Amino acid sequence: MTRLSTASFEPEFIEGLRDIFERKVPFNHLLGLRITTLDPDRVACRIEMKDELTGHYSRGLLHGGVISAAIDAIGGLAVVAAVAARHSDEPALKRLERFGKVSTIDMRVDYLRPPISLHFDLRAQVLRLGSRVASTRMEFFGADGKLLASGAGAYHVA
Amino acid sequence: MTRLSTASFEPEFIEGLRDIFERKVPFNHLLGLRITTLDPDRVACRIEMKDELTGHYSRGLLHGGVISAAIDAIGGLAVVAAVAARHSDEPALKRLERFGKVSTIDMRVDYLRPPISLHFDLRAQVLRLGSRVASTRMEFFGADGKLLASGAGAYHVA
Amino acid sequence: MTRLSTASFEPEFIEGLRDIFERKVPFNHLLGLRITTLDPDRVACRIEMKDELTGHYSRGLLHGGVISAAIDAIGGLAVVAAVAARHSDEPALKRLERFGKVSTIDMRVDYLRPPISLHFDLRAQVLRLGSRVASTRMEFFGADGKLLASGAGAYHVA
Amino acid sequence: MTRLSTASFEPEFIEGLRDIFERKVPFNHLLGLRITTLDPDRVACRIEMKDELTGHYSRGLLHGGVISAAIDAIGGLAVVAAVAARHSDEPALKRLERFGKVSTIDMRVDYLRPPISLHFDLRAQVLRLGSRVASTRMEFFGADGKLLASGAGAYHVA
Repeated sequence: MTRLSTASFEPEFIEGLRDIFERKVPFNHLLGLRITTLDPDRVACRIEMKDELTGHYSRGLLHGGVISAAIDAIGGLAVVAAVAARHSDEPALKRLERFGKVSTIDMRVDYLRPPISLHFDLRAQVLRLGSRVASTRMEFFGADGKLLASGAGAYHVA
Repeated sequence: MTRLSTASFEPEFIEGLRDIFERKVPFNHLLGLRITTLDPDRVACRIEMKDELTGHYSRGLLHGGVISAAIDAIGGLAVVAAVAARHSDEPALKRLERFGKVSTIDMRVDYLRPPISLHFDLRAQVLRLGSRVASTRMEFFGADGKLLASGAGAYHVA
Repeated sequence: MTRLSTASFEPEFIEGLRDIFERKVPFNHLLGLRITTLDPDRVACRIEMKDELTGHYSRGLLHGGVISAAIDAIGGLAVVAAVAARHSDEPALKRLERFGKVSTIDMRVDYLRPPISLHFDLRAQVLRLGSRVASTRMEFFGADGKLLASGAGAYHVA
Repeated sequence: MTRLSTASFEPEFIEGLRDIFERKVPFNHLLGLRITTLDPDRVACRIEMKDELTGHYSRGLLHGGVISAAIDAIGGLAVVAAVAARHSDEPALKRLERFGKVSTIDMRVDYLRPPISLHFDLRAQVLRLGSRVASTRMEFFGADGKLLASGAGAYHVA
């Protein structure tokens, strides 16, 4: 039987990574970042609008810093997923420890449209996974599916 | 008497801008961003370390998203200061309204060193102020003066 | 009858823009940049490998600077096409003059894989066309269709 | 005797690196890039204006792609210099071979002012030299010393 590279992760790994990403990273928890898809080659997150995340005092816009923080975080998550898939023979716990070894080298965000929505969806994709550096592309959508921001990042891999 | 372009702003403008930036932008308030210098050609901010801003659950590092959010915010602040200086003949209130018209087009952050410190200092400088677009450079330091991250941004000016 | 926004350009405009882009911009001519697709919402270019464009003296790699130059150029071309489509009521000559009014604000390039190929194909897309600023995404492929580099840019529109 | 980390390189290394950078990288040669300073912590280059490097057919502006190519190249040169200084115990030839192992991960350029000048000067500085990745800042000046463009890059180090 052919083992597809896009095989899903086992529940233990998914729940472990969700626990780290959503709860053990305090600032992600503050933002309310939640994982909605976690596949080796595709990750997605959602973030609910709330007052504390507002950037403009009168217009109810999401703060640009929430966008950049979320884009940075999901890019790193995509790298962790890709690294974990590359080490699919390792036990879940060992792959989870790799989370702490992925860190951002640099990142770009393009802000395209006013971020007004009840929630926001993010997607990230690894364009290149090297042995030391990974490059990613990220997208940030409103609830209506409009692209509100896009990003690119480089990450240390260990 | 020659009026220097680097003349300081009047207290009314400074306090008004501080009120908007530190208190009326909810996410800046959440981050604890405070203005420490506000001159036409140079702005600086400080942010105190606190648990909610942690990115790594075991090592006490500041979350990269706090860095990108703060770098984005101070770049915009530098643009507002430069725009206000260009319109120094306007009443303070009118210049303060310009805050809401500056928005980020895009931004880059380079993460250079692990962000561990009791507080962090930011500086931003406008490299070019056009009639429609401004370009900025931003720096993010630890309490010991080490450069921990640097940034570049482009902003809409109105 | 509905006029689609993706309607093709008339031959006069296409030939005029090709003449400017490929011949009247000396550095594009030096690079050998040729337009292969010119639609309102999608542009593509090709560049043939040649010795002068080599970056590494022993390995026959395309110089990274050729990649960044070509990515910058095609991003601007995509903006010119989008602006021309927005002013489809203007005579071709007037729309061609808009070429000289589009200029790069800033740009990012991610180098993903070694650029070895007999020719290279580029594609660019406008993510947002504002009245003053446009944001684009660019891709750079080898002859085998592999993504070798990707880019993002912001451009002045007039 | 104290050996300063900013000690100059020996002539053999300088001439060897100049030969590679200015002559053996064909595209650098085409651009006319010349090294004017080569110190462990600071490198500078010059580029003379010439017709083939023009971007705008009527206004005599340097092509943005020349700027991005030169900024990319000098950032890499600064990394090579920093790496060579770290391996100052190695023979010159071995340090020169390190040139081929430095490659760009990603780069940003901000275009600030119209590039019209008889020549252009570039400076680059390494902000962080890791064992695998280096981050740099680059500046691009007109003959009058005005900052015309600025850049940031990340490079693979081996």
